[in-house]
Amino acid sequence: VTTGPAVGVGEPPAGPLLVVGCGLVGASAAAGWSAAGREVWGYDRRDLGPLVERGWLRRQVPLAELREAAFVVLALPVGGILGAIRRLPFRAGQLVTDVGGVKAPVMEAARALPAGVAFVGGHPMAGSERGGYEAARPDLFAGAAWALVGEEPARGQVAALVTALGARPLPCDGAEHDRAVALTSHLPQLLATAIAAELEERGDTLAAALVGPGGRGLLRLAASPWDAWRDVVELNRAEVERALEAVRGRAGAPAQSLGEDFATAARFAARLRAAGDPG
Amino acid sequence: VTTGPAVGVGEPPAGPLLVVGCGLVGASAAAGWSAAGREVWGYDRRDLGPLVERGWLRRQVPLAELREAAFVVLALPVGGILGAIRRLPFRAGQLVTDVGGVKAPVMEAARALPAGVAFVGGHPMAGSERGGYEAARPDLFAGAAWALVGEEPARGQVAALVTALGARPLPCDGAEHDRAVALTSHLPQLLATAIAAELEERGDTLAAALVGPGGRGLLRLAASPWDAWRDVVELNRAEVERALEAVRGRAGAPAQSLGEDFATAARFAARLRAAGDPG
Repeated sequence: VTTGPAVGVGEPPAGPLLVVGCGLVGASAAAGWSAAGREVWGYDRRDLGPLVERGWLRRQVPLAELREAAFVVLALPVGGILGAIRRLPFRAGQLVTDVGGVKAPVMEAARALPAGVAFVGGHPMAGSERGGYEAARPDLFAGAAWALVGEEPARGQVAALVTALGARPLPCDGAEHDRAVALTSHLPQLLATAIAAELEERGDTLAAALVGPGGRGLLRLAASPWDAWRDVVELNRAEVERALEAVRGRAGAPAQSLGEDFATAARFAARLRAAGDPG
Repeated sequence: VTTGPAVGVGEPPAGPLLVVGCGLVGASAAAGWSAAGREVWGYDRRDLGPLVERGWLRRQVPLAELREAAFVVLALPVGGILGAIRRLPFRAGQLVTDVGGVKAPVMEAARALPAGVAFVGGHPMAGSERGGYEAARPDLFAGAAWALVGEEPARGQVAALVTALGARPLPCDGAEHDRAVALTSHLPQLLATAIAAELEERGDTLAAALVGPGGRGLLRLAASPWDAWRDVVELNRAEVERALEAVRGRAGAPAQSLGEDFATAARFAARLRAAGDPG
Protein backbone atom coordinates (compact mmCIF):
# COMPACT_ATOMS: atom_id res chain seq x y z
CA VAL A 1 0.00 0.00 0.00
CA THR A 2 1.41 3.40 -0.95
CA THR A 3 0.62 6.41 1.21
CA GLY A 4 1.16 10.07 0.48
CA PRO A 5 1.78 11.83 -2.77
CA ALA A 6 3.72 10.15 -5.55
CA VAL A 7 7.45 10.65 -5.34
CA GLY A 8 9.77 10.95 -8.29
CA VAL A 9 12.35 8.20 -8.41
CA GLY A 10 15.50 9.43 -10.13
CA GLU A 11 18.77 7.94 -11.21
CA PRO A 12 20.92 7.41 -8.10
CA PRO A 13 24.41 8.97 -8.24
CA ALA A 14 27.22 6.83 -9.65
CA GLY A 15 30.19 6.16 -7.39
CA PRO A 16 30.72 4.93 -3.86
CA LEU A 17 28.14 5.34 -1.07
CA LEU A 18 29.58 6.33 2.29
CA VAL A 19 27.66 5.40 5.44
CA VAL A 20 28.77 7.61 8.33
CA GLY A 21 27.84 5.72 11.50
CA CYS A 22 27.40 1.97 11.18
CA GLY A 23 24.98 1.09 13.95
CA LEU A 24 21.65 -0.67 13.51
CA VAL A 25 20.34 1.62 10.76
CA GLY A 26 23.63 2.41 9.01
CA ALA A 27 24.84 -1.18 8.88
CA SER A 28 21.43 -2.46 7.74
CA ALA A 29 21.34 0.07 4.90
CA ALA A 30 24.93 -0.77 3.96
CA ALA A 31 24.03 -4.45 3.84
CA GLY A 32 21.05 -3.80 1.60
CA TRP A 33 22.93 -1.56 -0.82
CA SER A 34 25.85 -3.98 -1.02
CA ALA A 35 23.39 -6.77 -1.78
CA ALA A 36 21.98 -4.54 -4.54
CA GLY A 37 25.44 -4.30 -6.10
CA ARG A 38 26.54 -0.85 -4.92
CA GLU A 39 30.02 -0.08 -3.61
CA VAL A 40 29.52 0.87 0.04
CA TRP A 41 32.10 2.37 2.37
CA GLY A 42 31.69 2.72 6.11
CA TYR A 43 32.95 5.22 8.67
CA ASP A 44 32.67 4.54 12.39
CA ARG A 45 34.84 4.87 15.49
CA ARG A 46 34.20 1.14 16.02
CA ASP A 47 36.13 -1.48 14.07
CA LEU A 48 33.94 -2.40 11.10
CA GLY A 49 36.01 -5.47 10.19
CA PRO A 50 33.08 -7.85 10.84
CA LEU A 51 30.92 -5.90 8.33
CA VAL A 52 33.65 -5.97 5.69
CA GLU A 53 34.09 -9.71 6.25
CA ARG A 54 30.43 -10.45 5.63
CA GLY A 55 30.41 -8.29 2.50
CA TRP A 56 28.17 -5.54 3.89
CA LEU A 57 30.94 -2.95 3.37
CA ARG A 58 33.71 -2.81 0.78
CA ARG A 59 36.02 -0.87 3.13
CA GLN A 60 36.14 1.02 6.40
CA VAL A 61 37.40 4.50 5.46
CA PRO A 62 38.66 7.53 7.40
CA LEU A 63 36.70 10.79 7.10
CA ALA A 64 39.58 12.11 4.98
CA GLU A 65 38.03 10.09 2.14
CA LEU A 66 34.62 11.74 2.52
CA ARG A 67 35.09 13.77 -0.65
CA GLU A 68 35.59 10.61 -2.75
CA ALA A 69 32.03 9.48 -2.07
CA ALA A 70 29.17 10.31 -4.42
CA PHE A 71 26.46 9.73 -1.81
CA VAL A 72 26.82 10.22 1.95
CA VAL A 73 24.37 8.87 4.53
CA LEU A 74 24.58 10.33 8.02
CA ALA A 75 23.34 7.41 10.15
CA LEU A 76 24.06 8.95 13.55
CA PRO A 77 21.97 10.11 16.50
CA VAL A 78 20.41 13.49 15.62
CA GLY A 79 23.00 15.49 17.58
CA GLY A 80 25.75 13.78 15.59
CA ILE A 81 23.90 14.50 12.35
CA LEU A 82 23.74 18.22 13.15
CA GLY A 83 27.45 18.24 14.03
CA ALA A 84 28.36 16.37 10.84
CA ILE A 85 26.35 18.77 8.65
CA ARG A 86 28.12 21.72 10.27
CA ARG A 87 31.64 20.35 10.30
CA LEU A 88 32.30 17.74 7.58
CA PRO A 89 34.00 19.03 4.40
CA PHE A 90 31.36 18.10 1.85
CA ARG A 91 32.06 19.06 -1.77
CA ALA A 92 29.84 20.34 -4.55
CA GLY A 93 28.20 17.54 -6.49
CA GLN A 94 27.70 15.27 -3.50
CA LEU A 95 24.27 14.00 -2.49
CA VAL A 96 23.86 13.87 1.30
CA THR A 97 21.04 12.45 3.41
CA ASP A 98 20.43 11.52 7.06
CA VAL A 99 18.24 9.10 9.03
CA GLY A 100 17.40 11.27 12.07
CA GLY A 101 14.08 11.08 13.90
CA VAL A 102 13.61 14.89 13.82
CA LYS A 103 13.61 16.71 10.51
CA ALA A 104 13.00 20.48 10.83
CA PRO A 105 16.23 21.21 12.80
CA VAL A 106 18.22 19.04 10.38
CA MET A 107 16.81 20.86 7.35
CA GLU A 108 17.57 24.18 9.02
CA ALA A 109 21.20 23.16 9.63
CA ALA A 110 21.53 21.89 6.05
CA ARG A 111 20.82 25.39 4.68
CA ALA A 112 24.41 26.27 5.64
CA LEU A 113 25.93 23.52 3.46
CA PRO A 114 28.21 24.75 0.64
CA ALA A 115 26.62 25.54 -2.70
CA GLY A 116 26.31 22.49 -4.90
CA VAL A 117 25.85 20.01 -2.06
CA ALA A 118 22.40 18.46 -2.41
CA PHE A 119 20.77 17.57 0.93
CA VAL A 120 17.64 15.48 1.47
CA GLY A 121 16.41 14.77 4.99
CA GLY A 122 15.42 11.17 5.61
CA HIS A 123 13.77 9.10 8.33
CA PRO A 124 13.19 5.37 7.92
CA MET A 125 10.23 4.09 9.99
CA ALA A 126 12.15 1.00 11.01
CA GLY A 127 14.47 0.12 13.83
CA SER A 128 14.48 -1.58 17.15
CA GLU A 129 15.01 -0.87 20.82
CA ARG A 130 18.31 -2.74 20.30
CA GLY A 131 21.18 -0.75 18.81
CA GLY A 132 24.57 -1.48 17.24
CA TYR A 133 25.43 -3.33 14.05
CA GLU A 134 25.00 -6.64 15.88
CA ALA A 135 21.23 -6.15 15.48
CA ALA A 136 21.46 -5.05 11.84
CA ARG A 137 19.95 -7.00 8.94
CA PRO A 138 19.68 -6.35 5.19
CA ASP A 139 15.87 -6.52 5.23
CA LEU A 140 15.35 -4.10 8.15
CA PHE A 141 13.58 -1.62 5.86
CA ALA A 142 11.49 -4.04 3.80
CA GLY A 143 8.01 -2.54 3.46
CA ALA A 144 8.80 0.36 5.82
CA ALA A 145 7.98 3.97 5.01
CA TRP A 146 11.01 6.25 4.64
CA ALA A 147 10.17 9.93 5.06
CA LEU A 148 12.03 12.22 2.63
CA VAL A 149 12.21 15.99 3.00
CA GLY A 150 13.74 18.08 0.23
CA GLU A 151 13.53 19.19 -3.37
CA GLU A 152 13.64 17.36 -6.68
CA PRO A 153 15.74 16.07 -8.36
CA ALA A 154 17.81 15.17 -5.25
CA ARG A 155 14.78 13.76 -3.44
CA GLY A 156 14.09 11.43 -6.36
CA GLN A 157 17.68 10.20 -6.29
CA VAL A 158 17.46 9.38 -2.59
CA ALA A 159 14.06 7.78 -3.25
CA ALA A 160 15.75 5.45 -5.73
CA LEU A 161 18.30 4.44 -3.11
CA VAL A 162 15.75 3.75 -0.35
CA THR A 163 13.57 1.87 -2.82
CA ALA A 164 16.57 -0.40 -3.42
CA LEU A 165 16.33 -1.32 0.29
CA GLY A 166 12.69 -2.33 -0.08
CA ALA A 167 11.44 0.83 1.66
CA ARG A 168 8.57 3.07 0.51
CA PRO A 169 9.67 6.70 -0.04
CA LEU A 170 7.27 9.10 1.70
CA PRO A 171 7.78 12.75 0.72
CA CYS A 172 6.82 15.19 3.44
CA ASP A 173 7.47 18.55 5.00
CA GLY A 174 9.92 18.71 7.92
CA ALA A 175 7.63 20.47 10.40
CA GLU A 176 4.72 18.23 9.43
CA HIS A 177 6.94 15.19 10.01
CA ASP A 178 8.04 16.41 13.44
CA ARG A 179 4.45 17.14 14.51
CA ALA A 180 3.33 13.62 13.53
CA VAL A 181 6.23 11.68 15.05
CA ALA A 182 5.86 13.53 18.36
CA LEU A 183 2.67 11.46 18.69
CA THR A 184 3.52 8.32 16.75
CA SER A 185 7.05 7.78 18.06
CA HIS A 186 8.49 10.22 20.61
CA LEU A 187 5.57 10.19 23.03
CA PRO A 188 5.20 6.37 23.00
CA GLN A 189 8.90 6.12 23.90
CA LEU A 190 8.63 8.65 26.73
CA LEU A 191 5.47 7.04 28.06
CA ALA A 192 7.01 3.57 28.02
CA THR A 193 10.05 4.92 29.86
CA ALA A 194 7.86 6.74 32.38
CA ILE A 195 5.63 3.73 33.11
CA ALA A 196 8.60 1.40 33.50
CA ALA A 197 10.51 3.86 35.70
CA GLU A 198 7.44 4.36 37.90
CA LEU A 199 6.97 0.59 38.32
CA GLU A 200 10.66 0.07 39.01
CA GLU A 201 10.82 2.84 41.61
CA ARG A 202 7.69 1.55 43.32
CA GLY A 203 9.58 -1.69 43.79
CA ASP A 204 6.50 -3.58 42.65
CA THR A 205 7.95 -7.03 42.02
CA LEU A 206 4.57 -8.34 40.87
CA ALA A 207 4.23 -5.79 38.08
CA ALA A 208 6.61 -7.37 35.55
CA ALA A 209 4.54 -10.56 35.71
CA LEU A 210 1.33 -8.56 35.25
CA VAL A 211 2.26 -7.28 31.80
CA GLY A 212 -0.07 -8.75 29.19
CA PRO A 213 0.20 -8.63 25.42
CA GLY A 214 -1.29 -5.12 25.32
CA GLY A 215 1.22 -3.52 27.67
CA ARG A 216 4.10 -5.58 26.33
CA GLY A 217 4.00 -3.87 22.93
CA LEU A 218 4.62 -0.57 24.70
CA LEU A 219 6.84 -1.65 27.58
CA ARG A 220 9.47 -3.40 25.48
CA LEU A 221 10.46 0.17 24.51
CA ALA A 222 11.64 0.61 28.11
CA ALA A 223 14.92 -1.00 27.00
CA SER A 224 15.69 1.88 24.59
CA PRO A 225 18.98 3.70 25.30
CA TRP A 226 18.88 7.36 26.34
CA ASP A 227 21.82 8.03 23.99
CA ALA A 228 19.55 7.38 21.02
CA TRP A 229 16.73 9.57 22.38
CA ARG A 230 18.31 12.55 24.15
CA ASP A 231 18.70 14.68 21.02
CA VAL A 232 15.36 13.72 19.52
CA VAL A 233 13.49 14.65 22.66
CA GLU A 234 15.31 17.95 23.11
CA LEU A 235 15.02 18.99 19.46
CA ASN A 236 11.31 18.18 19.26
CA ARG A 237 10.49 19.31 22.82
CA ALA A 238 7.73 21.79 21.89
CA GLU A 239 5.77 19.27 19.80
CA VAL A 240 6.28 16.53 22.38
CA GLU A 241 4.94 18.74 25.19
CA ARG A 242 1.94 19.72 23.09
CA ALA A 243 1.30 16.03 22.37
CA LEU A 244 1.68 15.10 26.05
CA GLU A 245 -0.86 17.68 27.18
CA ALA A 246 -3.37 16.62 24.54
CA VAL A 247 -2.99 12.96 25.46
CA ARG A 248 -3.20 13.59 29.19
CA GLY A 249 -6.41 15.54 28.74
CA ARG A 250 -7.98 12.77 26.71
CA ALA A 251 -6.81 9.87 28.90
CA GLY A 252 -8.11 11.55 32.06
CA ALA A 253 -11.47 12.55 30.60
CA PRO A 254 -14.85 11.33 31.89
CA ALA A 255 -16.30 8.08 30.56
CA GLN A 256 -18.46 9.64 27.86
CA SER A 257 -15.49 11.42 26.25
CA LEU A 258 -13.39 8.28 26.58
CA GLY A 259 -16.05 6.31 24.74
CA GLU A 260 -16.03 8.86 21.92
CA ASP A 261 -12.23 8.66 21.79
CA PHE A 262 -12.36 4.86 21.49
CA ALA A 263 -14.62 5.27 18.44
CA THR A 264 -12.35 7.92 16.92
CA ALA A 265 -9.24 5.86 17.69
CA ALA A 266 -10.74 2.83 15.95
CA ARG A 267 -10.92 4.89 12.75
CA PHE A 268 -7.21 5.66 13.09
CA ALA A 269 -6.51 1.97 13.72
CA ALA A 270 -8.23 1.14 10.44
CA ARG A 271 -6.12 3.79 8.69
CA LEU A 272 -3.01 2.28 10.27
CA ARG A 273 -3.90 -1.18 8.96
CA ALA A 274 -4.51 0.28 5.51
CA ALA A 275 -1.10 2.00 5.60
CA GLY A 276 0.38 -1.47 5.73
CA ASP A 277 2.04 -3.39 8.50
CA PRO A 278 5.62 -4.26 7.54
CA GLY A 279 5.61 -6.56 10.58
CA VAL B 1 10.45 -18.69 34.43
CA THR B 2 8.22 -18.57 37.49
CA THR B 3 7.48 -15.26 39.17
CA GLY B 4 5.86 -14.59 42.51
CA PRO B 5 5.34 -16.88 45.46
CA ALA B 6 4.75 -20.58 44.96
CA VAL B 7 1.11 -21.50 44.52
CA GLY B 8 -0.51 -24.68 45.72
CA VAL B 9 -1.95 -26.73 42.90
CA GLY B 10 -4.89 -28.79 44.13
CA GLU B 11 -7.18 -31.39 42.68
CA PRO B 12 -9.64 -29.66 40.32
CA PRO B 13 -13.33 -30.33 41.02
CA ALA B 14 -14.92 -33.32 39.29
CA GLY B 15 -17.90 -32.64 37.03
CA PRO B 16 -18.71 -30.28 34.20
CA LEU B 17 -17.05 -26.88 33.75
CA LEU B 18 -19.40 -24.09 32.70
CA VAL B 19 -17.97 -21.13 30.81
CA VAL B 20 -20.32 -18.14 31.09
CA GLY B 21 -19.49 -15.87 28.17
CA CYS B 22 -17.76 -17.49 25.20
CA GLY B 23 -15.81 -14.64 23.64
CA LEU B 24 -12.08 -14.59 23.03
CA VAL B 25 -11.06 -15.60 26.55
CA GLY B 26 -13.98 -17.90 27.41
CA ALA B 27 -13.87 -19.82 24.13
CA SER B 28 -10.07 -20.15 24.27
CA ALA B 29 -10.25 -21.56 27.81
CA ALA B 30 -13.09 -23.90 26.80
CA ALA B 31 -11.00 -25.15 23.88
CA GLY B 32 -8.01 -25.81 26.13
CA TRP B 33 -10.01 -27.62 28.79
CA SER B 34 -11.83 -29.73 26.22
CA ALA B 35 -8.46 -30.65 24.69
CA ALA B 36 -7.36 -31.67 28.21
CA GLY B 37 -10.31 -34.06 28.43
CA ARG B 38 -12.71 -32.06 30.61
CA GLU B 39 -16.44 -31.80 29.93
CA VAL B 40 -17.05 -28.14 29.11
CA TRP B 41 -20.40 -26.41 28.76
CA GLY B 42 -20.91 -22.95 27.37
CA TYR B 43 -23.42 -20.20 28.03
CA ASP B 44 -23.73 -17.19 25.75
CA ARG B 45 -26.46 -15.14 24.11
CA ARG B 46 -24.74 -15.94 20.80
CA ASP B 47 -25.23 -19.29 19.09
CA LEU B 48 -22.29 -21.46 20.17
CA GLY B 49 -22.98 -24.13 17.54
CA PRO B 50 -19.63 -23.53 15.82
CA LEU B 51 -17.78 -24.18 19.10
CA VAL B 52 -19.73 -27.38 19.74
CA GLU B 53 -19.00 -28.52 16.17
CA ARG B 54 -15.26 -28.12 16.58
CA GLY B 55 -15.30 -29.94 19.93
CA TRP B 56 -14.46 -26.92 22.09
CA LEU B 57 -17.77 -27.27 23.98
CA ARG B 58 -19.83 -30.36 24.76
CA ARG B 59 -23.08 -28.37 24.85
CA GLN B 60 -24.51 -24.88 24.87
CA VAL B 61 -26.63 -24.71 28.03
CA PRO B 62 -29.21 -22.30 29.44
CA LEU B 63 -28.45 -20.61 32.76
CA ALA B 64 -31.09 -22.87 34.32
CA GLU B 65 -28.40 -25.58 34.26
CA LEU B 66 -25.89 -23.45 36.18
CA ARG B 67 -26.34 -25.54 39.33
CA GLU B 68 -25.32 -28.75 37.52
CA ALA B 69 -21.79 -27.40 36.96
CA ALA B 70 -18.94 -28.13 39.38
CA PHE B 71 -16.81 -25.22 38.19
CA VAL B 72 -18.08 -21.93 36.76
CA VAL B 73 -15.91 -19.43 34.87
CA LEU B 74 -17.32 -15.94 34.43
CA ALA B 75 -15.65 -14.85 31.18
CA LEU B 76 -17.52 -11.59 30.73
CA PRO B 77 -16.60 -7.89 30.75
CA VAL B 78 -16.11 -6.80 34.37
CA GLY B 79 -19.56 -5.21 34.63
CA GLY B 80 -21.09 -8.50 33.54
CA ILE B 81 -18.98 -10.38 36.08
CA LEU B 82 -20.24 -8.16 38.92
CA GLY B 83 -23.82 -8.65 37.74
CA ALA B 84 -23.40 -12.42 37.48
CA ILE B 85 -21.90 -12.68 40.98
CA ARG B 86 -24.85 -10.70 42.38
CA ARG B 87 -27.64 -12.40 40.45
CA LEU B 88 -26.82 -15.97 39.37
CA PRO B 89 -28.15 -18.77 41.65
CA PHE B 90 -24.88 -20.43 42.60
CA ARG B 91 -25.10 -23.38 45.00
CA ALA B 92 -22.91 -24.51 47.87
CA GLY B 93 -20.05 -26.72 46.72
CA GLN B 94 -19.45 -24.88 43.47
CA LEU B 95 -16.09 -23.37 42.61
CA VAL B 96 -16.45 -20.04 40.80
CA THR B 97 -13.81 -17.85 39.15
CA ASP B 98 -13.70 -14.90 36.76
CA VAL B 99 -11.30 -13.43 34.20
CA GLY B 100 -11.86 -9.70 34.80
CA GLY B 101 -9.13 -7.11 34.45
CA VAL B 102 -9.95 -5.51 37.84
CA LYS B 103 -9.87 -7.63 40.97
CA ALA B 104 -10.64 -5.65 44.16
CA PRO B 105 -14.24 -4.76 43.19
CA VAL B 106 -14.86 -8.35 42.07
CA MET B 107 -13.55 -9.76 45.36
CA GLU B 108 -15.71 -7.28 47.23
CA ALA B 109 -18.83 -8.38 45.33
CA ALA B 110 -17.97 -12.04 45.87
CA ARG B 111 -18.22 -11.60 49.64
CA ALA B 112 -21.99 -11.64 49.22
CA LEU B 113 -22.04 -15.09 47.59
CA PRO B 114 -23.98 -17.79 49.51
CA ALA B 115 -22.07 -19.80 52.10
CA GLY B 116 -20.31 -22.79 50.60
CA VAL B 117 -19.64 -21.17 47.21
CA ALA B 118 -15.87 -20.91 46.78
CA PHE B 119 -14.77 -17.87 44.78
CA VAL B 120 -11.30 -17.19 43.37
CA GLY B 121 -10.65 -14.03 41.35
CA GLY B 122 -8.66 -14.60 38.18
CA HIS B 123 -7.03 -12.55 35.45
CA PRO B 124 -5.16 -14.16 32.56
CA MET B 125 -2.44 -11.91 31.11
CA ALA B 126 -3.38 -12.90 27.59
CA GLY B 127 -5.79 -11.59 25.02
CA SER B 128 -5.92 -9.44 21.98
CA GLU B 129 -7.40 -6.20 20.73
CA ARG B 130 -9.68 -8.49 18.71
CA GLY B 131 -12.69 -9.92 20.52
CA GLY B 132 -15.24 -12.69 19.97
CA TYR B 133 -14.77 -16.43 19.72
CA GLU B 134 -13.65 -16.04 16.11
CA ALA B 135 -10.26 -14.92 17.48
CA ALA B 136 -10.09 -17.69 20.12
CA ARG B 137 -7.45 -20.42 20.13
CA PRO B 138 -6.64 -23.29 22.51
CA ASP B 139 -3.08 -22.03 23.12
CA LEU B 140 -4.02 -18.42 23.91
CA PHE B 141 -2.75 -18.82 27.49
CA ALA B 142 0.41 -20.82 26.81
CA GLY B 143 3.17 -19.37 28.98
CA ALA B 144 1.00 -16.47 30.18
CA ALA B 145 0.71 -15.46 33.82
CA TRP B 146 -2.77 -15.89 35.33
CA ALA B 147 -3.32 -13.81 38.46
CA LEU B 148 -5.31 -15.61 41.18
CA VAL B 149 -6.80 -13.86 44.19
CA GLY B 150 -8.33 -15.93 46.99
CA GLU B 151 -7.78 -18.50 49.69
CA GLU B 152 -6.59 -22.09 49.65
CA PRO B 153 -7.72 -24.73 48.93
CA ALA B 154 -9.96 -23.12 46.26
CA ARG B 155 -7.10 -21.10 44.81
CA GLY B 156 -5.07 -24.28 44.34
CA GLN B 157 -7.98 -25.93 42.53
CA VAL B 158 -8.27 -23.01 40.11
CA ALA B 159 -4.46 -23.06 39.76
CA ALA B 160 -4.73 -26.67 38.59
CA LEU B 161 -7.27 -25.67 35.96
CA VAL B 162 -5.29 -22.74 34.58
CA THR B 163 -2.12 -24.86 34.58
CA ALA B 164 -4.00 -27.27 32.32
CA LEU B 165 -4.25 -24.38 29.83
CA GLY B 166 -0.48 -23.89 29.88
CA ALA B 167 -0.74 -20.73 32.00
CA ARG B 168 1.39 -19.88 35.06
CA PRO B 169 -0.74 -19.28 38.21
CA LEU B 170 0.31 -16.04 39.93
CA PRO B 171 -1.17 -15.60 43.41
CA CYS B 172 -1.66 -11.98 44.41
CA ASP B 173 -3.71 -9.55 46.40
CA GLY B 174 -6.62 -7.81 44.68
CA ALA B 175 -5.60 -4.23 45.47
CA GLU B 176 -1.98 -4.96 44.60
CA HIS B 177 -3.12 -6.41 41.26
CA ASP B 178 -5.25 -3.37 40.47
CA ARG B 179 -2.40 -0.96 41.32
CA ALA B 180 -0.01 -2.82 39.00
CA VAL B 181 -2.34 -3.25 36.02
CA ALA B 182 -3.29 0.43 36.12
CA LEU B 183 0.26 0.98 34.84
CA THR B 184 0.92 -2.22 32.89
CA SER B 185 -2.41 -2.50 31.09
CA HIS B 186 -5.07 0.17 31.68
CA LEU B 187 -2.87 3.22 31.10
CA PRO B 188 -1.25 1.80 27.92
CA GLN B 189 -4.75 1.25 26.52
CA LEU B 190 -5.96 4.75 27.40
CA LEU B 191 -2.76 6.31 26.04
CA ALA B 192 -3.01 4.39 22.78
CA THR B 193 -6.63 5.49 22.44
CA ALA B 194 -5.74 9.09 23.25
CA ILE B 195 -2.84 9.28 20.77
CA ALA B 196 -4.86 7.69 17.99
CA ALA B 197 -7.89 9.91 18.67
CA GLU B 198 -5.69 13.02 18.68
CA LEU B 199 -4.09 12.05 15.35
CA GLU B 200 -7.45 11.20 13.82
CA GLU B 201 -9.06 14.47 14.93
CA ARG B 202 -6.10 16.48 13.66
CA GLY B 203 -6.85 14.97 10.27
CA ASP B 204 -3.15 14.28 9.83
CA THR B 205 -3.20 11.91 6.87
CA LEU B 206 0.58 11.52 6.99
CA ALA B 207 0.64 10.25 10.56
CA ALA B 208 -0.52 6.67 9.91
CA ALA B 209 2.41 6.24 7.53
CA LEU B 210 4.79 7.70 10.11
CA VAL B 211 4.21 4.93 12.66
CA GLY B 212 7.37 2.89 13.12
CA PRO B 213 7.86 -0.37 14.95
CA GLY B 214 8.08 1.43 18.31
CA GLY B 215 4.78 3.24 18.07
CA ARG B 216 3.07 0.33 16.32
CA GLY B 217 3.30 -1.88 19.43
CA LEU B 218 1.25 0.72 21.28
CA LEU B 219 -1.02 2.02 18.54
CA ARG B 220 -2.42 -1.35 17.50
CA LEU B 221 -4.33 -1.10 20.82
CA ALA B 222 -6.29 1.75 19.24
CA ALA B 223 -8.53 -0.93 17.72
CA SER B 224 -9.74 -2.11 21.17
CA PRO B 225 -13.49 -1.88 21.71
CA TRP B 226 -14.86 0.49 24.37
CA ASP B 227 -17.29 -2.26 25.45
CA ALA B 228 -14.38 -4.29 26.78
CA TRP B 229 -12.80 -1.32 28.60
CA ARG B 230 -15.61 0.83 29.97
CA ASP B 231 -16.05 -1.14 33.21
CA VAL B 232 -12.34 -1.67 33.78
CA VAL B 233 -11.58 2.02 33.47
CA GLU B 234 -14.46 3.07 35.69
CA LEU B 235 -13.78 0.46 38.39
CA ASN B 236 -10.05 1.22 38.55
CA ARG B 237 -10.41 4.96 37.99
CA ALA B 238 -8.49 6.08 41.12
CA GLU B 239 -5.43 3.97 40.35
CA VAL B 240 -5.52 4.92 36.68
CA GLU B 241 -5.60 8.63 37.53
CA ARG B 242 -2.72 8.24 39.96
CA ALA B 243 -0.76 6.39 37.28
CA LEU B 244 -1.56 9.04 34.66
CA GLU B 245 -0.32 11.88 36.86
CA ALA B 246 2.90 10.03 37.71
CA VAL B 247 3.59 9.25 34.07
CA ARG B 248 2.80 12.76 32.89
CA GLY B 249 5.20 14.21 35.43
CA ARG B 250 7.98 11.92 34.34
CA ALA B 251 7.41 12.26 30.58
CA GLY B 252 7.39 16.06 30.80
CA ALA B 253 10.46 16.33 33.03
CA PRO B 254 13.72 18.08 32.05
CA ALA B 255 16.41 16.15 30.21
CA GLN B 256 18.41 15.17 33.27
CA SER B 257 15.43 13.50 34.95
CA LEU B 258 14.48 11.84 31.67
CA GLY B 259 17.98 10.38 31.41
CA GLU B 260 17.67 8.96 34.92
CA ASP B 261 14.27 7.49 34.04
CA PHE B 262 15.72 5.79 30.94
CA ALA B 263 18.28 4.08 33.19
CA THR B 264 15.63 3.06 35.73
CA ALA B 265 13.30 1.88 32.97
CA ALA B 266 16.06 -0.30 31.50
CA ARG B 267 16.18 -2.19 34.81
CA PHE B 268 12.44 -2.82 34.55
CA ALA B 269 12.89 -3.97 30.95
CA ALA B 270 15.44 -6.53 32.14
CA ARG B 271 12.97 -7.70 34.81
CA LEU B 272 10.29 -7.97 32.13
CA ARG B 273 12.51 -10.16 29.96
CA ALA B 274 13.31 -12.33 32.99
CA ALA B 275 9.58 -12.71 33.71
CA GLY B 276 9.32 -14.47 30.37
CA ASP B 277 7.87 -13.41 27.07
CA PRO B 278 5.06 -15.75 26.03
CA GLY B 279 5.21 -14.01 22.64
